[in-house]
Amino acid sequence: MGRTLGELALLLGGELKGPADLMIEGIASIDGATPRDITFITQRRYARQAHQSQAAAFLVGPDQADLPRPRIIVPHPYLAYAQVAALFAPLRRRWPGISNLAYLGREVELGQEVSIAPLVFIGDKVRLGDRVTIMPGCVIGDEVSIGGDTLIYPLVTILERCTVGERVIIHSGTVIGADGFGFVPGAEGHLKIPQLGTVVIEDEVEIGANCAIDRGALGETRVGRGTKIDNLVHLAHNVTVGEHSFLVAQVGVSGSTKLGKKVALGGQVGVVGHIELGDGVQVGAKSGVHHSIPPGVTVSGYPARPQQEWVRIMGHLPKLPEIYQRLKKLEQQLTKLSDRLEKESAT
Amino acid sequence: MGRTLGELALLLGGELKGPADLMIEGIASIDGATPRDITFITQRRYARQAHQSQAAAFLVGPDQADLPRPRIIVPHPYLAYAQVAALFAPLRRRWPGISNLAYLGREVELGQEVSIAPLVFIGDKVRLGDRVTIMPGCVIGDEVSIGGDTLIYPLVTILERCTVGERVIIHSGTVIGADGFGFVPGAEGHLKIPQLGTVVIEDEVEIGANCAIDRGALGETRVGRGTKIDNLVHLAHNVTVGEHSFLVAQVGVSGSTKLGKKVALGGQVGVVGHIELGDGVQVGAKSGVHHSIPPGVTVSGYPARPQQEWVRIMGHLPKLPEIYQRLKKLEQQLTKLSDRLEKESAT
Amino acid sequence: MGRTLGELALLLGGELKGPADLMIEGIASIDGATPRDITFITQRRYARQAHQSQAAAFLVGPDQADLPRPRIIVPHPYLAYAQVAALFAPLRRRWPGISNLAYLGREVELGQEVSIAPLVFIGDKVRLGDRVTIMPGCVIGDEVSIGGDTLIYPLVTILERCTVGERVIIHSGTVIGADGFGFVPGAEGHLKIPQLGTVVIEDEVEIGANCAIDRGALGETRVGRGTKIDNLVHLAHNVTVGEHSFLVAQVGVSGSTKLGKKVALGGQVGVVGHIELGDGVQVGAKSGVHHSIPPGVTVSGYPARPQQEWVRIMGHLPKLPEIYQRLKKLEQQLTKLSDRLEKESAT
Repeated sequence: MGRTLGELALLLGGELKGPADLMIEGIASIDGATPRDITFITQRRYARQAHQSQAAAFLVGPDQADLPRPRIIVPHPYLAYAQVAALFAPLRRRWPGISNLAYLGREVELGQEVSIAPLVFIGDKVRLGDRVTIMPGCVIGDEVSIGGDTLIYPLVTILERCTVGERVIIHSGTVIGADGFGFVPGAEGHLKIPQLGTVVIEDEVEIGANCAIDRGALGETRVGRGTKIDNLVHLAHNVTVGEHSFLVAQVGVSGSTKLGKKVALGGQVGVVGHIELGDGVQVGAKSGVHHSIPPGVTVSGYPARPQQEWVRIMGHLPKLPEIYQRLKKLEQQLTKLSDRLEKESAT
Repeated sequence: MGRTLGELALLLGGELKGPADLMIEGIASIDGATPRDITFITQRRYARQAHQSQAAAFLVGPDQADLPRPRIIVPHPYLAYAQVAALFAPLRRRWPGISNLAYLGREVELGQEVSIAPLVFIGDKVRLGDRVTIMPGCVIGDEVSIGGDTLIYPLVTILERCTVGERVIIHSGTVIGADGFGFVPGAEGHLKIPQLGTVVIEDEVEIGANCAIDRGALGETRVGRGTKIDNLVHLAHNVTVGEHSFLVAQVGVSGSTKLGKKVALGGQVGVVGHIELGDGVQVGAKSGVHHSIPPGVTVSGYPARPQQEWVRIMGHLPKLPEIYQRLKKLEQQLTKLSDRLEKESAT
Repeated sequence: MGRTLGELALLLGGELKGPADLMIEGIASIDGATPRDITFITQRRYARQAHQSQAAAFLVGPDQADLPRPRIIVPHPYLAYAQVAALFAPLRRRWPGISNLAYLGREVELGQEVSIAPLVFIGDKVRLGDRVTIMPGCVIGDEVSIGGDTLIYPLVTILERCTVGERVIIHSGTVIGADGFGFVPGAEGHLKIPQLGTVVIEDEVEIGANCAIDRGALGETRVGRGTKIDNLVHLAHNVTVGEHSFLVAQVGVSGSTKLGKKVALGGQVGVVGHIELGDGVQVGAKSGVHHSIPPGVTVSGYPARPQQEWVRIMGHLPKLPEIYQRLKKLEQQLTKLSDRLEKESAT
């Protein structure tokens, strides 16, 4: 299923430098490429490795236009890489139709070309859009609705009444719609607050493996269109994530917090409940966010504060022992000086 | 399945202010409520929103007794909310009886009205109490015992010989009884220590989604009665959690650590192994606890220290660059002063 | 299935002090032991408890050679414990052969004595080595290869084309081979980069419960021989972990980072992408590693720095409020002194 370099250049709308009929069989990293692969250079520092690479050809930006190897010059080599990778991706194999080893409840509505693998449980009144793929071992609760072209990897749980949009991808082990962590503290322990809400996953969201997105206590937990969520992320009840946000692995967001559009949370970030992070807020990895943050601000640290301030503080942190020593020395010098002056004025 | 406002007031033991025959069909948040819903006000700052709310009626505390809307005055509106939510919660649908798409091992003991959904695996000599519910896709190992009225959500794993109490709730994806992380380090790598113990989950515990609670190396890992655990929490081998404790999402507790009763760990807290946190200890979100903590103490930070001390330190942290500058200035001034005095005394 | 103390001494190559025919039925912790158990003392501080222990006999080191109880003296009591625990471990029960409640794809290659439990899904062209055990509810994708004597606990997902070595243990809920978190950011949101690579788990690796190990974007994500991984760990695409490394619970490692051999990461550590941690690097619990670290170095903190430096800084951190007060006082004293000198020289 190869493509010629000329075909690729045409598809990418890039400038071909090299033999149009060069056969490309796959795409690989600069050091993993064989003479049948194309590779790509996204940063100048990879240029050196390019000379040793066995790759047949390169996707390069204008800054690498002179690379003395067969190449396609494109404005954004990283984007071109994604496009070529999509060409060479093996076809996703789907179970053809509805497995007779799956369990389907009553009044299930199935669109065209739905794929339900063996060992899947589908509850009552579930609605699956066209070309939905449910891989083995998934459990889909009653009255769940899943939009067209959505792909659910193995062993995902989606609990009753939750809604998943179109072209969504949910990776294995993820749980959508578990009860939020809601209790009334009392003298005799904690009284459970029934979690009556749902989860809404909008179109084109991707959710990684082993995440947990809880249903609203009342109302919804919502993940906005195009948002991408990495592995092992926790979203508590009634969290709202705006469109096109980006949550890296092991992030946790507490109840009722609202993230705006295009918010980016680094790995292992924690956000407390009942606050708002405005559109475009960025939070550095491992930070703990305790207060609302206005749109467009980048923060870091624990507790999180404006990025530049945090960097400046952290830059001074290692000086702390030295500061302490210098302070002690100063105190001694000043005492000495004062004593001397006392003596002098006494004479 | 509505209730009149009068019925609700009676059930809650609250004071009715408004039409007793007002029909209430559900409960919702202040801004999500429709004219058929009741809502609740737990804090004075929500009072303003109350005026715009479409809710038919309100659950309010004595401080909001004057709210000019149909209302029920109760001592604890949040508790009243939990009680009313329980009234309006949809009936949990359970698989009626034992699915013939489930696998049951030998010598399984089943109480009255047990529900086992399709695609469940039950090992040998498992004992399930009255009205236990096992949802689809669960795997219950040999000799596991589960107490009456316990609810196990889909795709939960409970491994051999573990014990789960009565009225327990375990959410999807959670793993009870995986091997503890025990190895003897050696020159040739790590020798596995067989993990021979079990896990005991006491009555009325609730455990969130995708948690991992390891079996004891020897003896037990134990979660005390009434304790509530959020999503993605890790409890290592031989950890003990006392009664009515509260572990927020993504907490990790290392091996053999003992948490007392009514301990509260904030989100993403880490606790090292082989220490003790006394009854009533509270730990702020994202803290790292490296030492035992006496009963009743609240700590925060990394490494965790008494809350007030930590807050004070963190309050000074941003001043660090300024401290450094002021220190340098002081040193220069003192040097100048000393030099001048030297000169003066030389003359 | 008891053993005499004499037999145990012989098996361990230890020195027997006590009755050779003393019957031992199990192994237990010092305070959990019954008169039918052997126990062990690994640290001097446990010696006191030994006197109260009901254990029939003890595994002790040379420093406890005088313990006035039946005992076996060995060089490493912790190692001896692991060896004796292996003797007393209950036999792992395996499904005998291939369950007819499992689904097997086409062209599956099975070694000798493979065990496949009910409710397992095995894709096409899967290769399972001799004595592989697949417990209930697992999903094994197309073209996965699993080496001999490997044990896969319930509800594990291993996705297409991944490779697992021999004598590997993978605990429940873990996901091997989900897509890496790769997107090209654009004005219109994030374009998915197809994740074409695989995961390679080498021999004798153990992976805890509910971990997520993503496939390479291109090429491999690789976990080296003998490495042990605790629960809820995240390894991003193209991460490489060297041999005999040790990753404690809730660790996260970002894309393309390389960990050397015998690297040890404490619980909840986060490591950014595209860096290298040399052989033998150790990272303290909850640290955040932002830069490459040369071999053999121990680091801690956030951001992580050499352990001793970090300890020193943290030791001074509580002094920060005091430093600030002392600095202010110094400034006042110096101002006073300067003023006085001004006055004096004016006279």
